[in-house]
Amino acid sequence: MTKIVIIGGVAGGASAAARARRLSEDAEIVMFERGPFVSFANCGLPYHIGGDIQDRDKLLLQTPESFLARFNVDVRVMSEVVQINRQDKSVTVKNLIDGSKYTEQYDFLLLSPGAAPIVPPIAGINNPLTHSLRNIPDMDNIIQTIKTNDVKHATVVGGGFIGLEMMEAFHQLGIKTTLLELADQVMTPVDREMAGFAHEEIRSHGIDLRLNTALSAVEYLPNTNALTLSLSTGELLHTDLLIMAIGVRPETKLAQEAGLQIGQLGGIYTNEFMQTSDESIYAVGDAIEEADFLTGKPTLVPLAGPANRQGRMAADNMFGRSERYQGTQGTAICKIFDLAIASTGKNEKQLKADGVSYEKVYVHTASHASYYPGAETVSFKMLFDPVTGKIYGAQAAGKDGIDKRIDIMAVAQRAGMTVEQLQHLELTYAPPFGSAKDVINQAAFVANNIIKGDLTPIHFDDIDTLNDNQLLLDVRNPGELENGGFIEGTINIPVDQLRHRMNELPKDKEIVIYCQVGLRGNVAYRQLINNGYKARNLIGGFRTYTFAKV
Amino acid sequence: MTKIVIIGGVAGGASAAARARRLSEDAEIVMFERGPFVSFANCGLPYHIGGDIQDRDKLLLQTPESFLARFNVDVRVMSEVVQINRQDKSVTVKNLIDGSKYTEQYDFLLLSPGAAPIVPPIAGINNPLTHSLRNIPDMDNIIQTIKTNDVKHATVVGGGFIGLEMMEAFHQLGIKTTLLELADQVMTPVDREMAGFAHEEIRSHGIDLRLNTALSAVEYLPNTNALTLSLSTGELLHTDLLIMAIGVRPETKLAQEAGLQIGQLGGIYTNEFMQTSDESIYAVGDAIEEADFLTGKPTLVPLAGPANRQGRMAADNMFGRSERYQGTQGTAICKIFDLAIASTGKNEKQLKADGVSYEKVYVHTASHASYYPGAETVSFKMLFDPVTGKIYGAQAAGKDGIDKRIDIMAVAQRAGMTVEQLQHLELTYAPPFGSAKDVINQAAFVANNIIKGDLTPIHFDDIDTLNDNQLLLDVRNPGELENGGFIEGTINIPVDQLRHRMNELPKDKEIVIYCQVGLRGNVAYRQLINNGYKARNLIGGFRTYTFAKV
Repeated sequence: MTKIVIIGGVAGGASAAARARRLSEDAEIVMFERGPFVSFANCGLPYHIGGDIQDRDKLLLQTPESFLARFNVDVRVMSEVVQINRQDKSVTVKNLIDGSKYTEQYDFLLLSPGAAPIVPPIAGINNPLTHSLRNIPDMDNIIQTIKTNDVKHATVVGGGFIGLEMMEAFHQLGIKTTLLELADQVMTPVDREMAGFAHEEIRSHGIDLRLNTALSAVEYLPNTNALTLSLSTGELLHTDLLIMAIGVRPETKLAQEAGLQIGQLGGIYTNEFMQTSDESIYAVGDAIEEADFLTGKPTLVPLAGPANRQGRMAADNMFGRSERYQGTQGTAICKIFDLAIASTGKNEKQLKADGVSYEKVYVHTASHASYYPGAETVSFKMLFDPVTGKIYGAQAAGKDGIDKRIDIMAVAQRAGMTVEQLQHLELTYAPPFGSAKDVINQAAFVANNIIKGDLTPIHFDDIDTLNDNQLLLDVRNPGELENGGFIEGTINIPVDQLRHRMNELPKDKEIVIYCQVGLRGNVAYRQLINNGYKARNLIGGFRTYTFAKV
Repeated sequence: MTKIVIIGGVAGGASAAARARRLSEDAEIVMFERGPFVSFANCGLPYHIGGDIQDRDKLLLQTPESFLARFNVDVRVMSEVVQINRQDKSVTVKNLIDGSKYTEQYDFLLLSPGAAPIVPPIAGINNPLTHSLRNIPDMDNIIQTIKTNDVKHATVVGGGFIGLEMMEAFHQLGIKTTLLELADQVMTPVDREMAGFAHEEIRSHGIDLRLNTALSAVEYLPNTNALTLSLSTGELLHTDLLIMAIGVRPETKLAQEAGLQIGQLGGIYTNEFMQTSDESIYAVGDAIEEADFLTGKPTLVPLAGPANRQGRMAADNMFGRSERYQGTQGTAICKIFDLAIASTGKNEKQLKADGVSYEKVYVHTASHASYYPGAETVSFKMLFDPVTGKIYGAQAAGKDGIDKRIDIMAVAQRAGMTVEQLQHLELTYAPPFGSAKDVINQAAFVANNIIKGDLTPIHFDDIDTLNDNQLLLDVRNPGELENGGFIEGTINIPVDQLRHRMNELPKDKEIVIYCQVGLRGNVAYRQLINNGYKARNLIGGFRTYTFAKV
């Protein structure tokens, strides 16, 4: 009879327990959870605070009792494993209610302890009004603070998933909110220019978004039960509630003390079978380093999807199977008010850091047939190898169909497709759902035009540094320039007049063409090139250029 | 200077014209269109009739003038090509306004004539109240009939895309509607049991849906300006407007008369470069036979996506490129009131007809995290090779996230992925958009359980013919049976009591387990198998079984 001990009862641990039982009826399975709850919906916590999920019970997916009844798993909450004794294959467990300790033997041990919020050593950070959000008690504390205090203003530090979701939750509760972000953008999985769409959405809802701003010190004011925050800009900010959401750090204390190998990024090392450096001990989820899908290098990806699949796989392998984890793309999405912003694979910042040669395209096109009601612009960025067409990554922002486009790219990348093949994708089309040429087909057309030499691109970040041998040409209609702005120094010839007015342009300069999104620019580009001009087209057009500065 | 003549100015023809101009500034491009409009949104016609698209002008994507200005294409509407003269590479054109004829030379000819609605030889079918819907004048005629007559009841013959969309349009206009369908299901791209979801949605909106019913004769009643329809059931139906939407037939008259090769299915033959049997003549869109993605056999797929991409490709190849069309999966979607129903690849009917060995799974799971508001059930079917795991096709129905799931499957199939690989897909997840284990991951888990022998399936269509050595076991809670019904002859042991009540079950019979969707059934199945019982689990559970009968 195999005995499996699991440390941590949420995503990875719970998945492993259920799978292990399905594989073996007579295995003994014990699951330890330090907190009072197992298998809760940690991704739902901000939405309960904000009121979207009204019923707290909906977050409690399983209880120790339901786990016992369905899977015959011995779930022990409020039970902290304080030591792993590898020699005799046992763990030392502390009962957090009565303080007693005991040991439990294992044949296989699964570590699924997750990751803990990083709380930086800022003066005054330990005070009754500063919270982080990882579990149900954290959530309850925040709700309690809001209920008992007169919270008129909240401050969130960190523009990642939790920070953005908490910002929205506060806004929904009618609390004025400041979002502080150390970097020049929120939502770091996407590149700076794509984050511009998020910045606009955030500010349009009246959020006080402060980029490039750190929290330096916190002062608790007991008389008014409020905080004064000192910012890196020298400003002071008065607030009633502070959420620290700058990121998480793998929980590796137990693993480290047991002498298990820790990776270079600080997560628990595992092989592709989810095995740690001790073959009887597996580890999954936010606590581990996993292989990046593209590079194979270690990466930390604290997301629920990989954790769940890794848990299932670890259970398989404990029973003698050989399920290999196939790398993490880091596919992620965040709702920011009415906007969705998502990405998969590598972003441009990472490719640059890794010294990888890449090309990129931007398209902005309707989420479904533009003549059918409800179409929204999908702003899409795709990164690829300029020679082979291999897909490196994709990012998208918009109010409709964002999850779909990034899912398509996640599948295509995982399948090893090239941007050439993306041209041929046959996606669902009827006017309420898509277009005969979908966003992805269109992006692929542009990418292939570049690869085949049918299009010489220029990108938004080169536009402000054009030289004297380049001439900026806006091919939109005059009304669009008047109403929506234009790039300083451009001349304007609408694309539909270009064939007759081409002689206004010099042949000895490179004509840098732009339109709103790049489509008319391409038509103009082809006209000029086929008439012997030198030209480039601004990929993604004025829209990409503009949002990069938001 | 290359001269390109294009016959047909909608999807394929218009795409080819625009692409040809981008490739060459000095090519002469002439586009003939028999009707008064080019490049109109034919997929939008039903939605204008129903009022979703209010503004008729939105359907007119391009005009001859706009095509000339942007692409320097000589567009001639009301101009029917009546003959192709292959010897001297010219076409004979009839001006439909003054009846005059002339010839026009070509270097390359593109045939993009589309397909025409099939109007069967039914007695009395030619009358002022019977319409089909292919183009703007058809649409205008239908709207005119509704405006000038007192249309209280409309009848649609044919439950394909156009038929379903017209049914919905009439319903939106407050017109009582009957839908007649010769087959036992609407929406033939999906299998019968998946069409059950459509049937329920249609009937729940008060539509008089009659399956297995043909139209035998039509009598026009001039006095009341109405029709009496004779049905194959012997019934008579009084109606004020009749729409014939039983399908389309490729327009091949010109090609046939010119001696071009016609395929066995009645479409124009082309090779993978979109070339007909005459190397100077290309053909694209609804008029042609194309290669099926899976089998490589000829198929007729009258859809806008392939037409557009083929048009672009034909233009490329006229200019010396070698773009190969990579086969059609037939990815399709239809909105039916609040429901979406979609498919890609082969359905089970086709696999059976082709004698292909296959397995299938059904899952019914939430479109996004079920604890977050707005989640809807995605009912999903996947067909695959039971040995290699190769994807044959997928179908889905539901009120949210249907397009996304079928798009994912369309990409995975095109990429040559197996159902094994689908387990590892890393899709966007946040509570408003998905689940940590998406529908597709879950379907892949079930499929792999079957392939690996971890699960012996039984399907809905075997349940009504169980033998004496089989015992039906419902593992849902008693309340579910009471409120939602159950399968006659079952015994009931809730899954969470099964471990303690297993002795109530005989070991010499095969236990046929079912639950609502198949998930608890699998837990019960594994318990029984691991305790030495013989068992099968009903894939897709009671839900699949029930809707197969709707």
